[in-house]
Amino acid sequence: MTKIQDRRTIRKYKNEDVDDQLLEELIHSSSRAATMGNMQLYSVVLTKDDTVKSALSPYHFNQPMINAPVVLTFCADFNRFSKWCEERDAEPGYSNFLSFLNSMSDTLLFTQAFCTLAEEAGLGTCYLGTTLYNPLGIINVLHLPKLTFPIATICLGWPDESPIQPDRLPLSGIVHHDYYIDYDEKAIDMVYSFKESLEANKEFVRINQKQTLAQVFTDCRYTKKDNEMMSSGLIEALKHQGFLQ
Amino acid sequence: MTKIQDRRTIRKYKNEDVDDQLLEELIHSSSRAATMGNMQLYSVVLTKDDTVKSALSPYHFNQPMINAPVVLTFCADFNRFSKWCEERDAEPGYSNFLSFLNSMSDTLLFTQAFCTLAEEAGLGTCYLGTTLYNPLGIINVLHLPKLTFPIATICLGWPDESPIQPDRLPLSGIVHHDYYIDYDEKAIDMVYSFKESLEANKEFVRINQKQTLAQVFTDCRYTKKDNEMMSSGLIEALKHQGFLQ
Repeated sequence: MTKIQDRRTIRKYKNEDVDDQLLEELIHSSSRAATMGNMQLYSVVLTKDDTVKSALSPYHFNQPMINAPVVLTFCADFNRFSKWCEERDAEPGYSNFLSFLNSMSDTLLFTQAFCTLAEEAGLGTCYLGTTLYNPLGIINVLHLPKLTFPIATICLGWPDESPIQPDRLPLSGIVHHDYYIDYDEKAIDMVYSFKESLEANKEFVRINQKQTLAQVFTDCRYTKKDNEMMSSGLIEALKHQGFLQ
Repeated sequence: MTKIQDRRTIRKYKNEDVDDQLLEELIHSSSRAATMGNMQLYSVVLTKDDTVKSALSPYHFNQPMINAPVVLTFCADFNRFSKWCEERDAEPGYSNFLSFLNSMSDTLLFTQAFCTLAEEAGLGTCYLGTTLYNPLGIINVLHLPKLTFPIATICLGWPDESPIQPDRLPLSGIVHHDYYIDYDEKAIDMVYSFKESLEANKEFVRINQKQTLAQVFTDCRYTKKDNEMMSSGLIEALKHQGFLQ
């Protein structure tokens, strides 16, 4: 049983099934998270089948975690609600950007509630941010209809590693009182100095042959060029799924 | 101590302060939620001051929960990270739509972790979805700089009510195995029949003088016209904050 304050991402799992009844209980309890107007604007696609995992894999850059015992793709879903409206003589008005962000919000609250409960049950989770990088590929593999959109992928299994907890920024770096106080040079130094002092991060700078840790992020991990290219793909995917005109 | 499966939204709070040290502990523990590349792309603006609550109030349609002892505005934040890059001879590339959604994702995982921990500590929470309705107003009140964006508002306090848990859709209505199976007429009936059978929802239809529950949503609560108007406002606000060109 792992509580939020003690959690860490788990990327290696035992070759052991996760019981369907446990999964159902976890999903059922997670649906108690707050949801806009009690509309529950999400669906989850639960994958245990190796063929489907293999089909998803390239869209997650073949990260090995995709071979976890269970892969859950949490999707924004205004399709089910809109179909209900149509069956009940009501005209749905959810083919728009606000509705996308509303359903994305519902989906992520549900996703985080699921992860918390799964970890409390002793399971390990890994969140794949790549879900937003290649949405059309995932949409195609999972047969996601219009007014749905893949938001978050959780790889899940019984932990087969015990990594140390990574660093986090000091609280004063993320909390503002009453008004947002912008960060000057001194504040930036204060917020990031601990992170920069860590031996693992210094090693990271050396391996990548960079001068600063920030350059590892901007030049190697999350580059302007990639972000701009994937932003265009995201906007195309939102149009394809009917959330943008 | 309330667990996720037993939670419900709390809209009435005792006239009693929430201790700053408890708030700090809750925020600190919440920052253990998964975050993209350990960048922690969020900030939280913590409001106890009545003047600030009053200034925020109209943008939340003057819902009385905004007068809770504590109001927390959880913001997507690529400003802090970008400032760090600039101070460290690195060129940030986060003025784009993908970066907005990445920071929104980080923010909502953090928000839900916070709510779970707050409820476990006995506090009551109310999620205000209105945060995405009038973002420019909130941006202005809280002095949010470019590359930040208000995502979620949590009203917080010691509970002064014990409402019943609202209904949720059956599990079979939100879970798909391997592939998304779209909902036909029969599936829609199955998923929504319990919700429609509830006396409180029937009363809701009568009060609003509608024929079906779905019409209450499409004609009164979340209309196409409002959604489209607010979608335009959202896109303008994203441009204003530097997340869209």
